Amino acid sequence: MPVTRYWAEHAWLGGDAVTAGVTIEVAGDVIAAVRVAAAAPPDAVVLRGVTVPGLANAHSHAFHRALRGRTQSAAGTFWSWREQMYAVAARLTPDSYYALARATFAEMALSGVTCVGEFHYVHHEPNGTLYAEPNAMADAVVRAATDAGIRITLLDACYLTGGIGAELKGPQMRFGDGTAEAWAKRVSGLADASQSAMARVGAAIHSVRAVPPDELDDVVAWAAENEAPLHVHVSEQLAENDNCLAAYGCTPTQLLADHGVLGPRSTAVHATHVTSRDVALLGGSGTTICMCPSTESDLADGLGDAAALAAAGSPLSVGSDSNASIDLWADMRGVEFGERLRSQRRGHWTAMQLLTAATSVGHASLGWPEAGRLQAGAPADFVTVRTDGVRLAGADPLLEALVFAGAAADVSEVVVAGRRVVVAGRHQLVDDVPAVLASSIAAVTT
Amino acid sequence: MPVTRYWAEHAWLGGDAVTAGVTIEVAGDVIAAVRVAAAAPPDAVVLRGVTVPGLANAHSHAFHRALRGRTQSAAGTFWSWREQMYAVAARLTPDSYYALARATFAEMALSGVTCVGEFHYVHHEPNGTLYAEPNAMADAVVRAATDAGIRITLLDACYLTGGIGAELKGPQMRFGDGTAEAWAKRVSGLADASQSAMARVGAAIHSVRAVPPDELDDVVAWAAENEAPLHVHVSEQLAENDNCLAAYGCTPTQLLADHGVLGPRSTAVHATHVTSRDVALLGGSGTTICMCPSTESDLADGLGDAAALAAAGSPLSVGSDSNASIDLWADMRGVEFGERLRSQRRGHWTAMQLLTAATSVGHASLGWPEAGRLQAGAPADFVTVRTDGVRLAGADPLLEALVFAGAAADVSEVVVAGRRVVVAGRHQLVDDVPAVLASSIAAVTT
Repeated sequence: MPVTRYWAEHAWLGGDAVTAGVTIEVAGDVIAAVRVAAAAPPDAVVLRGVTVPGLANAHSHAFHRALRGRTQSAAGTFWSWREQMYAVAARLTPDSYYALARATFAEMALSGVTCVGEFHYVHHEPNGTLYAEPNAMADAVVRAATDAGIRITLLDACYLTGGIGAELKGPQMRFGDGTAEAWAKRVSGLADASQSAMARVGAAIHSVRAVPPDELDDVVAWAAENEAPLHVHVSEQLAENDNCLAAYGCTPTQLLADHGVLGPRSTAVHATHVTSRDVALLGGSGTTICMCPSTESDLADGLGDAAALAAAGSPLSVGSDSNASIDLWADMRGVEFGERLRSQRRGHWTAMQLLTAATSVGHASLGWPEAGRLQAGAPADFVTVRTDGVRLAGADPLLEALVFAGAAADVSEVVVAGRRVVVAGRHQLVDDVPAVLASSIAAVTT
Repeated sequence: MPVTRYWAEHAWLGGDAVTAGVTIEVAGDVIAAVRVAAAAPPDAVVLRGVTVPGLANAHSHAFHRALRGRTQSAAGTFWSWREQMYAVAARLTPDSYYALARATFAEMALSGVTCVGEFHYVHHEPNGTLYAEPNAMADAVVRAATDAGIRITLLDACYLTGGIGAELKGPQMRFGDGTAEAWAKRVSGLADASQSAMARVGAAIHSVRAVPPDELDDVVAWAAENEAPLHVHVSEQLAENDNCLAAYGCTPTQLLADHGVLGPRSTAVHATHVTSRDVALLGGSGTTICMCPSTESDLADGLGDAAALAAAGSPLSVGSDSNASIDLWADMRGVEFGERLRSQRRGHWTAMQLLTAATSVGHASLGWPEAGRLQAGAPADFVTVRTDGVRLAGADPLLEALVFAGAAADVSEVVVAGRRVVVAGRHQLVDDVPAVLASSIAAVTT
């Protein structure tokens, strides 16, 4: 197999500093070798700046990208925002969702994301019936990622109720499979048809608001049988906690723990409003936490306590969630900045820990444990951030500057599965990303 | 006088939406006319995207730019960070500070800032003696702004004690004038020599930590006589409140109020930890509040209550402060996001209000009440943000998207005093801004 050589001016090999001069040999879609080399081999593609493993965006709702800048000025809450989000969800078709998701995933690629966890619940016709092709929507989203050049884990979400004890209504109708058993049957078909070198399928429980306790077990069983990731929104808003306590006499985390939802293959998204008992349950079970700081401030969720969860045993990942911003560099440091605002102390998370969250931990949480590291045998997914722009000029130490001052706008090169997806800041598969964003957003908002 | 015509595809004229098609006629350094025009006049410079008044960065310490990415990983507090900051302050000379400030102000210009309020306290030799030219450092900073193409208000800070009741020590020695009277004498010389069409001089009280009560009056008197802006750090950290209460039996805000520091020409920077009585004093006196959200999270200050202060009567401005990031677009929305995290509700500040904070209010707080608006007679300072990038693609309404999703990286054109300072994202006066950042930072850190 022919080998392509890249030479990184600086590369992060997983430690607490970057290494100057690193040759990365790629054979097919895998890294064949990584070696320190003061000078670039003559045939190498030179990567100026700092090269790191591709970022895993562990929590995304691609179609929310259409809402960016549309929901900001009106007073309200998460719940009034949700009405605006539902209006877009109601308009999606497999074709329009494909176009919007492809454009959104292309924006992610430009920002350094090489693998997305798409938390997917718009899977039925607007009236709630199955599409003729039952996974038409999921297929569209998976194709969108593939065509945008990034990996995807389609986290198909079981979503059965419109709130605890409430039927699905209006725009929620298309989220529902009726039962977890029906959900599992549909998702098994998806897993059989859609998994590829670039796509995997995982399970999701939308939340304790959307899946009754007696339906949780079937989702857990499906994920276990398929050794699939299992993601769930947990305690993003206090109202969820209040409703859960009123209905079941316990916190959402406790309910999930009692039904076997937590564990090392599981990811709790947000975990903003959790008790110390919840923290112990999440950490003790090895459940990954996915924090989404940009969305959690935008949607007025609050500040989760990432440090306490990590101390209890939970790995940390990060996600862009609502895609009101697509910049995992800001989200990485957003975790630390949130801790600083909570505690009025600095230095909870090192740059190394935050970049680990956005690379190897994020990938593992999405069912790609082999990815997110620059080493022989790993998928050939890596990202170069230029250091000759105004944001990182003068950076030293480089790793710290990258994590605490880098930005999506500084990403210059992206390689996914050995393919050069972004070159000199331009997407190679989607010609004009802003134009396809604009047209695909217009199609679902006007 | 020859007139230069610009035609903005969209422009913000101060209301709650942008206007499509606006011709801006510039005569010399002033806007001669603003008129709606569906098509560009044949001789016009076409500004694609959305054009807004130049941004006022109402609170900056230019030399802190050297610390970006250098202070992040170690555990600690604001106070341990300050030790690192002092180490850079100790190394500055008029020449090295000129180079660093020029590079930093050039980065600001690229981000859309056309006027900076530089809160200046490194004004003496390292051992605390006056420079042969007493304002050598201030002169360097003013020249740096002029050479970077932006306006400056040099807010010369009175800084007499190293804490309440403590003498200046070590690196603090060079901050001190000994007495407020000596400070006033020096600053009067600065005001006589340095004010120009592009530069004004204002007063600052570093904080109640650094200026004893009986010295406050001389600073207030100087500002009143000169009708100059008067800025002061207020309650950024709880320790300041504790020390003030212990020493004087009142809050910093109360102390400042009792000495006439508050008022419509005054700006309280941060006001993070204030009581409801403080809020009433600040708002009731018409004191502007300058919030610096990126720094306030970075330095673990906490979340101020901008909405309460505004409701009490304080105008809001924003600043980049430590320059750990230079992106007032992020700081604008950061004020609203902070409120959301505090309140778990959305919609405290509209896009119009936040952009007003960063334009006309910021300018007024820096002593340029005529600036920060696109209207005939105002200084010809304006900024164009491209809307054909990934961040703003699909934006509608444009004003909301600009404020809630725009970024420094999207600024394409900047005009200051009628001069095109940034064209197509490139600075016209400083050839390679990242290179001069890197060299000037290296000179004061290694």
